[in-house]
Amino acid sequence: MKTLIQNGRIITAADDYSADVLIDGETISAIGHKLPLAGVDKIIDAGGKYLIPGAIDPHVHMELPFGGTVSSDTFETGTRAAAFGGTTSIIDFAIQYKGKTFQQTIDDWHAKASGNCAIDYSYHMAVTEYRPDQEKEFARVIDQGITTFKLFLAYPGVFMVDDQTMFRVMRSAGEAGGLTLVHAENGDAITLKIAELMAAGKTEPKYHEESRPPVMQADGTARALRVAEFANAPVFIVHVSCEASMIELMRARDRGNAAYGETCTQYLFLDKSYYDKPDFEGAKYVFTPPLAPKQDIEQLWKALKLGYLQEVSTDHCPFNFNGQKELGRGDFTKIPNGGPGVEDRLSLVYDGAMKRGWPLTKWVDVCSTASAKLFGMFPKKGTIAVGSDADIVIFDPNAKRTISAKTHHMNCDYSLFEGMEISGKPTTVLSRGKVIIENGQYVGRKGDGQFLKRGATIGV
Amino acid sequence: MKTLIQNGRIITAADDYSADVLIDGETISAIGHKLPLAGVDKIIDAGGKYLIPGAIDPHVHMELPFGGTVSSDTFETGTRAAAFGGTTSIIDFAIQYKGKTFQQTIDDWHAKASGNCAIDYSYHMAVTEYRPDQEKEFARVIDQGITTFKLFLAYPGVFMVDDQTMFRVMRSAGEAGGLTLVHAENGDAITLKIAELMAAGKTEPKYHEESRPPVMQADGTARALRVAEFANAPVFIVHVSCEASMIELMRARDRGNAAYGETCTQYLFLDKSYYDKPDFEGAKYVFTPPLAPKQDIEQLWKALKLGYLQEVSTDHCPFNFNGQKELGRGDFTKIPNGGPGVEDRLSLVYDGAMKRGWPLTKWVDVCSTASAKLFGMFPKKGTIAVGSDADIVIFDPNAKRTISAKTHHMNCDYSLFEGMEISGKPTTVLSRGKVIIENGQYVGRKGDGQFLKRGATIGV
Amino acid sequence: MKTLIQNGRIITAADDYSADVLIDGETISAIGHKLPLAGVDKIIDAGGKYLIPGAIDPHVHMELPFGGTVSSDTFETGTRAAAFGGTTSIIDFAIQYKGKTFQQTIDDWHAKASGNCAIDYSYHMAVTEYRPDQEKEFARVIDQGITTFKLFLAYPGVFMVDDQTMFRVMRSAGEAGGLTLVHAENGDAITLKIAELMAAGKTEPKYHEESRPPVMQADGTARALRVAEFANAPVFIVHVSCEASMIELMRARDRGNAAYGETCTQYLFLDKSYYDKPDFEGAKYVFTPPLAPKQDIEQLWKALKLGYLQEVSTDHCPFNFNGQKELGRGDFTKIPNGGPGVEDRLSLVYDGAMKRGWPLTKWVDVCSTASAKLFGMFPKKGTIAVGSDADIVIFDPNAKRTISAKTHHMNCDYSLFEGMEISGKPTTVLSRGKVIIENGQYVGRKGDGQFLKRGATIGV
Amino acid sequence: MKTLIQNGRIITAADDYSADVLIDGETISAIGHKLPLAGVDKIIDAGGKYLIPGAIDPHVHMELPFGGTVSSDTFETGTRAAAFGGTTSIIDFAIQYKGKTFQQTIDDWHAKASGNCAIDYSYHMAVTEYRPDQEKEFARVIDQGITTFKLFLAYPGVFMVDDQTMFRVMRSAGEAGGLTLVHAENGDAITLKIAELMAAGKTEPKYHEESRPPVMQADGTARALRVAEFANAPVFIVHVSCEASMIELMRARDRGNAAYGETCTQYLFLDKSYYDKPDFEGAKYVFTPPLAPKQDIEQLWKALKLGYLQEVSTDHCPFNFNGQKELGRGDFTKIPNGGPGVEDRLSLVYDGAMKRGWPLTKWVDVCSTASAKLFGMFPKKGTIAVGSDADIVIFDPNAKRTISAKTHHMNCDYSLFEGMEISGKPTTVLSRGKVIIENGQYVGRKGDGQFLKRGATIGV
Repeated sequence: MKTLIQNGRIITAADDYSADVLIDGETISAIGHKLPLAGVDKIIDAGGKYLIPGAIDPHVHMELPFGGTVSSDTFETGTRAAAFGGTTSIIDFAIQYKGKTFQQTIDDWHAKASGNCAIDYSYHMAVTEYRPDQEKEFARVIDQGITTFKLFLAYPGVFMVDDQTMFRVMRSAGEAGGLTLVHAENGDAITLKIAELMAAGKTEPKYHEESRPPVMQADGTARALRVAEFANAPVFIVHVSCEASMIELMRARDRGNAAYGETCTQYLFLDKSYYDKPDFEGAKYVFTPPLAPKQDIEQLWKALKLGYLQEVSTDHCPFNFNGQKELGRGDFTKIPNGGPGVEDRLSLVYDGAMKRGWPLTKWVDVCSTASAKLFGMFPKKGTIAVGSDADIVIFDPNAKRTISAKTHHMNCDYSLFEGMEISGKPTTVLSRGKVIIENGQYVGRKGDGQFLKRGATIGV
Repeated sequence: MKTLIQNGRIITAADDYSADVLIDGETISAIGHKLPLAGVDKIIDAGGKYLIPGAIDPHVHMELPFGGTVSSDTFETGTRAAAFGGTTSIIDFAIQYKGKTFQQTIDDWHAKASGNCAIDYSYHMAVTEYRPDQEKEFARVIDQGITTFKLFLAYPGVFMVDDQTMFRVMRSAGEAGGLTLVHAENGDAITLKIAELMAAGKTEPKYHEESRPPVMQADGTARALRVAEFANAPVFIVHVSCEASMIELMRARDRGNAAYGETCTQYLFLDKSYYDKPDFEGAKYVFTPPLAPKQDIEQLWKALKLGYLQEVSTDHCPFNFNGQKELGRGDFTKIPNGGPGVEDRLSLVYDGAMKRGWPLTKWVDVCSTASAKLFGMFPKKGTIAVGSDADIVIFDPNAKRTISAKTHHMNCDYSLFEGMEISGKPTTVLSRGKVIIENGQYVGRKGDGQFLKRGATIGV
Repeated sequence: MKTLIQNGRIITAADDYSADVLIDGETISAIGHKLPLAGVDKIIDAGGKYLIPGAIDPHVHMELPFGGTVSSDTFETGTRAAAFGGTTSIIDFAIQYKGKTFQQTIDDWHAKASGNCAIDYSYHMAVTEYRPDQEKEFARVIDQGITTFKLFLAYPGVFMVDDQTMFRVMRSAGEAGGLTLVHAENGDAITLKIAELMAAGKTEPKYHEESRPPVMQADGTARALRVAEFANAPVFIVHVSCEASMIELMRARDRGNAAYGETCTQYLFLDKSYYDKPDFEGAKYVFTPPLAPKQDIEQLWKALKLGYLQEVSTDHCPFNFNGQKELGRGDFTKIPNGGPGVEDRLSLVYDGAMKRGWPLTKWVDVCSTASAKLFGMFPKKGTIAVGSDADIVIFDPNAKRTISAKTHHMNCDYSLFEGMEISGKPTTVLSRGKVIIENGQYVGRKGDGQFLKRGATIGV
Repeated sequence: MKTLIQNGRIITAADDYSADVLIDGETISAIGHKLPLAGVDKIIDAGGKYLIPGAIDPHVHMELPFGGTVSSDTFETGTRAAAFGGTTSIIDFAIQYKGKTFQQTIDDWHAKASGNCAIDYSYHMAVTEYRPDQEKEFARVIDQGITTFKLFLAYPGVFMVDDQTMFRVMRSAGEAGGLTLVHAENGDAITLKIAELMAAGKTEPKYHEESRPPVMQADGTARALRVAEFANAPVFIVHVSCEASMIELMRARDRGNAAYGETCTQYLFLDKSYYDKPDFEGAKYVFTPPLAPKQDIEQLWKALKLGYLQEVSTDHCPFNFNGQKELGRGDFTKIPNGGPGVEDRLSLVYDGAMKRGWPLTKWVDVCSTASAKLFGMFPKKGTIAVGSDADIVIFDPNAKRTISAKTHHMNCDYSLFEGMEISGKPTTVLSRGKVIIENGQYVGRKGDGQFLKRGATIGV
């Protein structure tokens, strides 16, 4: 099967030019002017549109049991929604439950994802406990194409690890060629603060924010960065939501460390005043870390622009307001932590980036290329280049739309961005050469997506 | 008993002028020109000399059981050595052993110190475990004049506390009007590093330094400062030895926190190249935190000058080279951690301050006044003012001497500063109106020193 | 004449204690408890009050011809108003007009001030041009007790000097033992901006602010600090009004330079929104540098607290709204630059400092002691110590008052702080032993104030 | 003419993949796997080699009259040497001599360059004086494809402009769509310092460095950045040689400005100890700004890596040691300022980048792509993409060579990097599709190079 995309304006993390793209099977075989039509099965006209590499969301949680319920998107529904939004690869987190080995954990996740995904997928290996006999497992995990490990410095008693485990995992992962991701907060101090707030009858959603403010996120971030420096291992800070944490990351990079980080769409548009919404609506925004003060928003955009942060993910972990978020009425600690987001990221970042005068290349970088490099998928993913997977989004920069739960494809009864009017929309999406979104319709099939074997980090 | 000191040049943390000082009993009753001689029992001529408030060393460990041995100065020998050096108040650390209450700990320390000291003394209450029923003990400790609490983020399994205990103690101490001091390192990561070094046969003294470099001190410092900020409590970082930690403190102060810190004499003069001394001599410099890279020395002097750090202590905790330090031959982890210092601080800081062009007032501030304020002894201690205790040092700025273990009065067979030639020397020392050092001789008596009841911190 | 002040609480830059103060002639002869009454001519009871060293305002402009008019306070009216506010020393600026020698300039200023002042006074020598033959004049100026020089990097064609002159004056002043003060802006760029604004019909007072925003002040500040560093000379930045400039100063000090700076009362309380006042009222706040964004206010308070800035002056340069400020209706460039302030500084800073939890000692330091040291008047001025001039303010911390032009003593028809309610008020003021303010009345005489010969800077 | 380059590993600023490149005439017409050979005139095998976009040196001075002599490379010899080194575009500086219009200046430069160059070339317009009637000339210059303007804050009386001119040019250039480059130092203060040094008999080359240390470069840099911020215009700092200047640039970018900068090869490898070479050899390194302290070198590499600086140029301005540099024996001010460099940059940066673990993409970015974007040549230059000029370097990463004046092609009798052994070498170089270097031989012709019309800056 050969597909030719004509007349598009190709944007990568560095380039911006017009040419035709020829796809042969699953990969791009040629880019050129006036490529021969001989043998071409399908021609797509991309005149007036951008051709960009399929977006990558390296931080999602599909059908995750958490907080007494399960995140509302399955791998099937969640990856289909991602496809609608121009995302052609996701990385979920395979979370080691206490007593399980890494391999059992991976097998569990394969059981959920395999055969169900619309787009390619992988997992980070989330380590929640460490026994000396696990040391050799790191290489085995990496051999399977899972090259990234995740630690939580939050949720004591559930996922949180102590500093010894952090040092050991960073060291072991790093020596085996892997990268360690950290959810960076001070879980212990936060837990005490939560108890104080609850004891004082402060049970509404907004106290979620008060219980884990920027100072505690910056603390966890600074610690993770310094332990990684001491262990001489690379490190990546997930969901940086505030200026204080971002500054710690910038300083660690400035000291010469292989330190990286992301922010998420919600932190680029929303601020903590959303917790004051009436009628328990603040619960919609209860995720961790919480939304930050308004002035931090521009700081995060700046951080992406200047490379202090490298990419934008969603931390997609949806829970319906009705029936799920409501579990926390009268007790904010029982609100399932998370929100929907996997669908709208590419468009939202486009809209925000254009309003701030970014070059298009930077938009592509933070939505796709940087993640492909950091998480070992480049150049298979993350670019439009000969030999790369034909994960391509045809993006109409002039289309306008209004975000709404009524029209989105995520399995969640609300949107974090309800009513927001934005410019820019994917019109056609190809995954490994196959059109899966066309004319606003999903034309792919469950199981099209394959497990992505990933390699080593390319520093950015 | 009335004593008149004539013709001295009085230096305080702010003032520098010439006048006579009249002492009536234990306190200063008048300062003036041509004060009447009527009723004066003793006249001391301080012509050509400085009169300064007795120095305060807020960080010492006398006869402390540690690392399988006991620090070699008793309260008797250590406070006498302090007096020789112009120090008229010390604060030791009453360390809570597991299972003991605060009160038992204080009583144990009183048993060691009471009746034995040459100068006034107090303790910080070092908390090593925290049970909810101890909450009300904080106020009781403070009622006894012990207003400062100490936490270790090092020595796991011995003294180290976790972040929950840190948060709780800072909160409880702060609410009761106290100040929390922190030994700030990342004890967990360091412990793993030590195991790695030992396993690799790296057993010499210099690996002590490699096992706990600045990055791990800065980590502990940043964490203690942020947990204090979250707990809305004041905090003091002990023995800051490197630029990286100092910068964290400066930043915390810049954010508006009640955050303070000290460095110690050894860090102002010595650098980590001392660990390379042959014949196990490096063990003399094995204390925690270790000596830092040479370039950090000027940074610490600068930090004192500009107020990023507030005072200089010694962390006096002597162990003889012969018989004590030697315990660690072939295993740096068995070297008792600590060094002698209580005697030479005032002169050493004078010498270094003058070489750097400091005003005399700043010297007095970092050796006496700042500690008096931060640790709740002001204006009883820390100044020469009417109503203050007559703790006065007559200091000869022109005297020269060579520091040596042969001539010092500390009970330790080596000096950290052996052979160093410095200017400036206390010639006469008064403690609460009584001359205890005169003509190079100790003329006081064991037990002259009293337990000092301390009050609340005055911010600086 | 001997005066005894009893029962006061003495506050200096370091001390806080209760004692009696005996004044013999012009100076303090003794401080003590129960000082003998024999020979005492006058007893003042200061029970419940603070005794502080007379405040020093090192930045005022009395009867200064500027902008086509003359500042509305004479040395007589201005120093009397200062006395009412607890200020007992001022430093004006003797400004070299083109073609005049330093000596002629000083003589001109003596002609205006001599015999007219209520309190002691001095001048900074403002250099507006530099010829090689002036090099030896620096020492002559210093010999007369004028040890500080001032340069303008603003007002091109009037006062502004170029970088060569700046380097030369800093170098020459520094080598002669003097200190160079700098009005730091980028006068050239600002002048062009003003022309642009005027050409665009932007003539209201608020465009004064737009024409010289923080970025141009920070520019001048950074430049002055670096040229001083290159010339190896001490430097002092006057009227720092914004965070951006303050940070440059902090950085220069951090690099180890003898660099100092002040802010002024108006910048500690008012922000640039005042320029939006209707009916040309914004003109009242037209001074240079202009008021800054609101968030800078706390940064300036912090800078004083942490020692990034050393003192608070007023830049008192009053012009009446009627008849003077009005000259600039329809053309903001014709609004005389300056505002009234010499009277209210001590109380305003007290009020603001107490609201921010400062120790009293810091208040005294920034209002008096630091200026005495930096500008070569210590310990004659700036402290309450034996031998010092008896410039003493008895300050009632509990008195409340409302600031108003109706009640102030400055010769100006408006107050910058109209209607502000503050705590704390001087009740009695002594200048060199003589009571000049008592029971809210001025009881001194024109000419009481003497020219102050100043010496070298004491670094702080 | 069609050329096919097979089997190369293509490296751009973002991509790294293997494919064939088809060149049709002057541009790249296709990139693909197994591209058809039909119609191909020439096949080049690039197996085992990198294919990278031709390097761009945006800062050179060919046959420039300066300091009483003329830089020793003509456009002919200099561009040929550049080609040997893999550089396929240069930007020289057309310097406005006093009294000349912009157009006359451009015409003068065209007269020197036209018909003589081996590779494509352009000029920055160096403005040395500004008259109001020149305002409309900016647009005319830009219409001719010269979109960048240069200002000197050094060399008073020759090239230096005052702050008013700086503001005006930045404003006028920016409004016309141009970018202003600044040589940033404090020329006035430096001139005085030079006079002092000469007067003191300090005439050797090393005093060149002492006369213009980092503090004065940082001063000029900070000023240029802030005036640009005030003028709301983009700015580019040329030849950043020290950490202090780099930090100012990083801060300006952090404040959100369109501020950019470069360093040069010499600052990435050499330090100021070179001035101490005997026998006047230090004169070889006399260029402005001078070499910096050794510790600054790693800071500059870091700055490139993290994007604080954007590209590496050479400031190529060669003068022979014999006959030219020697003019300054006994008077360092007479040493012609400049050094040779245009030939070795690409290889040197490759070698240094690999030693520091950079990804290849970053090497290409700083040597080519960033300059193409910043200076308005992208995507015509700076990438390997369909439609771009076929300026391609085939680079052998494994070739070793020793840099020496004996073998280099620049018309200069010494090399700054004499004897340095490096890895990596261009083996074949194409300029707009034509092979000009092959088998170590120059196979092009004088005049192959064309004047490059440039467009607007693309922010990076």
